[in-house]
Amino acid sequence: MRTTGSGAAAPTLLVTMGDAVGIGPEIIVGAFRSGELGDAVVVGDPAVLRRAGAPMTAVVEAVSDLAEVPPGCLPVLVADGLPPGLAGLPWGRVDARAGAAAARCIEHAVRLVRAGQAAGLVTAPIHKEAFAAAGVPFPGHTEMLRSLATPPGGTPPVARMMLVNEELSVVLVTIHLALRQAIEAITFDAVLETLRVAQAAARHWLGRAPRIAVAGLNPHAGEGGLFGDEEIRVIGPAVAAARAEDIDARGPFAPDTVFMRARRGDFDLVVAMTHDQGLIPVKYLGVEQGVNVTLGLPFVRTSTDHGTAFDIAGQGRADPSSLVAALRHARRLLQTR
Amino acid sequence: MRTTGSGAAAPTLLVTMGDAVGIGPEIIVGAFRSGELGDAVVVGDPAVLRRAGAPMTAVVEAVSDLAEVPPGCLPVLVADGLPPGLAGLPWGRVDARAGAAAARCIEHAVRLVRAGQAAGLVTAPIHKEAFAAAGVPFPGHTEMLRSLATPPGGTPPVARMMLVNEELSVVLVTIHLALRQAIEAITFDAVLETLRVAQAAARHWLGRAPRIAVAGLNPHAGEGGLFGDEEIRVIGPAVAAARAEDIDARGPFAPDTVFMRARRGDFDLVVAMTHDQGLIPVKYLGVEQGVNVTLGLPFVRTSTDHGTAFDIAGQGRADPSSLVAALRHARRLLQTR
Repeated sequence: MRTTGSGAAAPTLLVTMGDAVGIGPEIIVGAFRSGELGDAVVVGDPAVLRRAGAPMTAVVEAVSDLAEVPPGCLPVLVADGLPPGLAGLPWGRVDARAGAAAARCIEHAVRLVRAGQAAGLVTAPIHKEAFAAAGVPFPGHTEMLRSLATPPGGTPPVARMMLVNEELSVVLVTIHLALRQAIEAITFDAVLETLRVAQAAARHWLGRAPRIAVAGLNPHAGEGGLFGDEEIRVIGPAVAAARAEDIDARGPFAPDTVFMRARRGDFDLVVAMTHDQGLIPVKYLGVEQGVNVTLGLPFVRTSTDHGTAFDIAGQGRADPSSLVAALRHARRLLQTR
Repeated sequence: MRTTGSGAAAPTLLVTMGDAVGIGPEIIVGAFRSGELGDAVVVGDPAVLRRAGAPMTAVVEAVSDLAEVPPGCLPVLVADGLPPGLAGLPWGRVDARAGAAAARCIEHAVRLVRAGQAAGLVTAPIHKEAFAAAGVPFPGHTEMLRSLATPPGGTPPVARMMLVNEELSVVLVTIHLALRQAIEAITFDAVLETLRVAQAAARHWLGRAPRIAVAGLNPHAGEGGLFGDEEIRVIGPAVAAARAEDIDARGPFAPDTVFMRARRGDFDLVVAMTHDQGLIPVKYLGVEQGVNVTLGLPFVRTSTDHGTAFDIAGQGRADPSSLVAALRHARRLLQTR
């Protein structure tokens, strides 16, 4: 069905559909069925969402139409530029059309948020190989959102990926890079900017300055230079510079114990140097409650902390818990903004 | 006191003292007080152990003298070549004499084990900077034990570090190297040899072939080559070669979820590429129950999975749980050998 009208309350959140042949559409439907979607509007393809189990979709022309959507209908705003036939693609196989569609949803959602029609963004998982197959020049959401949030002729914001669960908050200096390249990308500026972004964001939701631990890069944080000097040359000086700016940063600490120490309450968050250094501990106890938050953007953005799970897509087995946690976390962040 | 004699039963285990100014001596005393030392003999300096709280030490000339040791006395075999004055060194400061002493204890203990006077080795923590200050040419126990286990004129055994707790067993391809150097050390041979050693060792204690997961090196295990090609060039071919040898190895898997999957029971052990990739998840839930096991040596060797904890050494606050777990694990391994 298609509804139009001029509803009053602007919805707070947009949810992007993610890769059409991954588990994104079905976890969105799962969150909707359990009432967790709330006043969020999905940006995507109605046929894809129906294939993923949506009882009925209500196509809205603008987010302000949400009030007109009948109960029991999943509100969908059709993203501009979607390729045709998405709902006929085989589940769980990398497809350039699904990659392109995922990118169109994100672009459309960011335009709406930047135009003030929604307050924030919750994203379902995309597949990086499908992005690449579609020629989308970004390895992941964070990089793409950073580009979309760049003012015309301006410099991109310093955006950083944060992973959060009930026990641990981790902000990453580098993300989707080969490990060799990640090491090169760990510069004084990159570490210091991460600390500034983490401090600014965490101050909001904590209501006070966060206690930030900084992980080293090398075993035992270099053991005084015996196993690498990045801690002495790069990370330590960046921590010192941050402290000179009144950021309560400490370290660099041995990577193998800093997350355990944060879990037991020694720190409010950990700045990790690489993707897996930070994500291994966040995911270790299970990915269901993890939330991915992008810090440093001019709007709220959260996401699941899992991927497209092509191996189980379309089978009705996907767990929407991480998406539900992402929705809840986004609403909490909006309250403290 | 000093006892001599010719006791009958050969003790199963030797415990090396570790760094004299770290927590090693006091956790040995703690294990002794709780009755967990059993028939193990400490190789170290009696004065250091008394300073760490040992009620009384009984110096034994040979491990066979253990039967003569009166109850309540900690049996200590004085390591050859100990520097004088160790018990007067300040707690918790890197000292070349403490580093040299720790090395002498290990050398002496390995000689005794190789001579058939004891069945295995449990080591208290050493400090790598103290080793370096003393000119000991090894960054850690594993490398040193591998060298000491090399037959005269022969090739060193393929030794690998395994970390074990109640939930997870992780075998490491590389350990005490700067991350840049570790990447270079992840070769086809290094991965395949790790898989062979892990298979041979785990088969003993499981009583069947282990299900081994292999972690990738890069984010998302390289995401099909987008973020690094070590998985395609090196790790994947090594896994295939291992499978051709009837080793049940699978992967390479995305590093950020493989440990979670092993924890929930999908695999018996994980082969990790680098020190922190493997140790972060093992230590995340607390270091107290973790045990460090060296695989591939011609004798059993276990160790605490924590370091010298210079910040609390000498204060009576150190927790002997990991040493107790190491003693118990060594006894279990001896039973299955």
